[in-house]
This record gives sequence, structure tokens and C-alpha cells, in this order.
Amino acid sequence: MSVTRRLLLISNSTEHGSGFLEYCSERVKAFFSKYGVSKVLFVPYALFDYDGYTRKARNAFQNMGLELESIHEKEDPVEAVKEAQGIFIGGGNTFRLLKTLYDNNVIEPITERVLQSGLPYMGSSAGTNVATVSICTTNDMPIVFPPSFKALGLVPFNINPHYIDPEPGSIHMGETREERIKQYHEERTTPVLGLKEGSMLEVEGDKAVLRGKTGAKLFIRGQEPQVLEIGTDISHLLKSE
Amino acid sequence: MSVTRRLLLISNSTEHGSGFLEYCSERVKAFFSKYGVSKVLFVPYALFDYDGYTRKARNAFQNMGLELESIHEKEDPVEAVKEAQGIFIGGGNTFRLLKTLYDNNVIEPITERVLQSGLPYMGSSAGTNVATVSICTTNDMPIVFPPSFKALGLVPFNINPHYIDPEPGSIHMGETREERIKQYHEERTTPVLGLKEGSMLEVEGDKAVLRGKTGAKLFIRGQEPQVLEIGTDISHLLKSE
Ligand SMILES: [Ca+2]
Ligand SMILES: [Ca+2]
Repeated sequence: MSVTRRLLLISNSTEHGSGFLEYCSERVKAFFSKYGVSKVLFVPYALFDYDGYTRKARNAFQNMGLELESIHEKEDPVEAVKEAQGIFIGGGNTFRLLKTLYDNNVIEPITERVLQSGLPYMGSSAGTNVATVSICTTNDMPIVFPPSFKALGLVPFNINPHYIDPEPGSIHMGETREERIKQYHEERTTPVLGLKEGSMLEVEGDKAVLRGKTGAKLFIRGQEPQVLEIGTDISHLLKSE
Repeated sequence: MSVTRRLLLISNSTEHGSGFLEYCSERVKAFFSKYGVSKVLFVPYALFDYDGYTRKARNAFQNMGLELESIHEKEDPVEAVKEAQGIFIGGGNTFRLLKTLYDNNVIEPITERVLQSGLPYMGSSAGTNVATVSICTTNDMPIVFPPSFKALGLVPFNINPHYIDPEPGSIHMGETREERIKQYHEERTTPVLGLKEGSMLEVEGDKAVLRGKTGAKLFIRGQEPQVLEIGTDISHLLKSE
């Protein structure tokens, strides 16, 4: 069965020294325009201050000529998802975000609309984590306890946003990002795509391509990590469905 | 009620360029000797390879003139805790460690023995995280799902081991450690002690003192973070009991 799926999964919303979504605004605009979306449903659950976050996001979307409504301003979150033309889940804390998605019963409605009726989905950082199989490869602190680490499952692999290789010469003894992902693979077989800051994954149906300007590192259990350049087609990772 | 409690909570087991527990071996030796402990029960649950980890820990303890037995080599983990003279929970992945403590039903027995009969408890990194109120301020990846984030509660605050201030000039957009702890305080009121690498907290009854060579940063919700020098008495943090 072919999957109707339109995703833009961004590593980070903000580049050092520029505004929210500024560095990737052309890509975001093109993504929603392509599918005829003029109004986007925003999910601010990853940050504590929903109103402040919504103002920031609305401003960035207005600059792209797009309208933005926040799910927290709607009476019924489930209805809001059912009626959305497009959805954007912003970054922040992944545990808080996933817990709130569960608390508001929107996990299933979002998954259904994205995978069955092709609702365009954009995520950044934590919003990219929750689009994958699980939040088991987030970088965030577990500040709240969600009922599960299982996420939306819009792709059959995990993503590590803000992926970074160790600083040469670092003497800090905390695990490097690569060591953390290796620990995950001691427990699970799910592939992990380490998306460097400045990169994003665009998925349309059964096709997935790396976009942006930095690239990614792909971790498959039991194999050497692979460096992936921008433009790489990684559609094969969608096949495990 | 005065609490019988003997703890050595270390930020990190290994200093760059030296062996396991080498940099703090004098402190560790003094801690166990003080309480007449000659044989320590080791808990290797935070790493995947229990046997390898036990060999490494046993070697380090033998160099200090102490015997070490691992809980995974004993028939009954609960019995092993009940009979222990002293306990050392090593670092690795905090989620894996806490889940395995729950799976093996040793949470309650350890808490009981430490708080009621004064079993000397040493933790490093993840082993320090699980000694506190919750693992909500760990730095680790959530590679497995524990039944709760609630930990042993041997002290009435949380610790962030491997605490580090941001690199000056960094352009990485992931949250700094301080921002992560601030996010935690958006959800909870529990104080957080950021223990820098090279530091440890020594607790005896109702007295808690910072040891080692680097220091700590104390985060109280709604207050400016406080820099704490080595030797600082932070017994007041034990008072919320
Ligand atoms: Ca985050
Ligand atoms: Ca760790």
C-alpha cells in the first residue's frame, strides 16, 4: 500500500543570529504552498508559554504569507486537527510535548490525518522527534513523565535533531551524541537519522530526501555510521513499513 | 527524626586521561573505610555489558584494598541488598539503570537500608541521579521506558551530574544545561544541584558538604542560580524532608 504522506522534518527552528524559522523560510513556504495550504494549525505544547510561542510562530508565518492558528486557542483540539489544512509542531521539550499530545488525545487523530488523508506536517526539533517511531533519541531532559515514549510514527525510523559530532579536544566525560545513539542500539533496532542543525528531511509518499545545508549521519544497528550529504535520497528507510 | 544516611554522590567516575575512579580513589577509600566496609555490592545496571563493567569496577576497588561483588552475579538481588555492607551504583544510562532497579524490585530495599540502617551508598553519574528525588534532571537519552521517573529519594532534591556551563561563543542551538534545568523548574519545585565534573556531595545524617575540586551550581525555582565552591555546607537542602 502506498502511503500518502507529506512531511517537512526540520532539525532546528532557529539558526544562530537570525529569527525564528528565518533561515529556512523559503523551504517552509514552498512546502505549504505546494499543497495549497494557506492556514496552518500550530501546536505550541513543547514550551511552557503557549501564548508567547504562538505570537512568535504567527509572526514568522505571516512573513511567509501564511495564516497560523494555535491548537490551544481552539475549543476542541481533536476537532482542530480534523479540520486543519496543515500542521506545524514546534520545538522545545520533547517529553512535555509528547505528554500533552497524549493528554489532549490528539496522537491518533494526527497520525490518521497525516498518513490517511495527506495532511501536510511540519515539525522542528521536538516536533520532529514526535513525528518518528519514538522519542527515545531526543536530547531533552525528562522533565515530565509521558504515558509512553511511543510517538506519531509518521516514518518508521527515529531522528536525533541538533545532531552534533564531538568537539575535537573536548575533555568533558558525558557521552557524545554518537555514544548515546549507540546505547539506544543496544536496546532497539530502529535506525536513527542524526539531523545536523541546518538540515531537514522532506518526505512525499514513499520518497524521502535530505534538504538544507549541512547534512546528516545515519546510524544502523551493527553498522558503521554513514555520513549523508544534502540531496541524498533515503527513501529506502521508509521501506520497513 | 534524624536520618541515618551515609552517601557519596559523585558527578563522574572518570576524569579525562585517567582510569576508572582513579581521580577520586582517596575519597572513595576514606568513605568506605570510615564505616568499616571491606566488601562493596556493585550495581552495573546502567551499562549493557554487566560482566565487563564489573571487571573494571572490581579492578578499581581492588586497587583501593576493597572487595567488590556484583549484584548480577548473586542469585537474589533483593537478598544481596539486604546483606550488603556498602553499595556502589555505577554510571551509564540513567533510564536503563532505573528501569532495571524497578524490574529487579530493589528500589524499596535499597531506600530502606540506606535511610533506616545507614548502608553506605556511593553513586557516580547515573548512580547519583537515581539517589535523588527523580531522574528528571539526567542528561541521558531515554533509550528504555521505566515505570516511573521517581528514584530512590535518598536526598530531597535532584542532582544534574556532569554539570557544565555553556561554551563561550557556541552557536549550537540545542538548549544549554541551565536552560534545561529552567524548563524542569517550569514543571516542578524540587531544587537541582548541578554537580560539575570532578565534584561530589558527601552526606552524613543531616550534614551535606561539597567535595572534590570544581564545585557546583545550585538552581532554586524562581531564584538566580548560585555558584557553590568546594567545601560549601549545603545541609539546608536536606531540610525539606
Ligand atoms: Ca529541545
Ligand atoms: Ca550517562
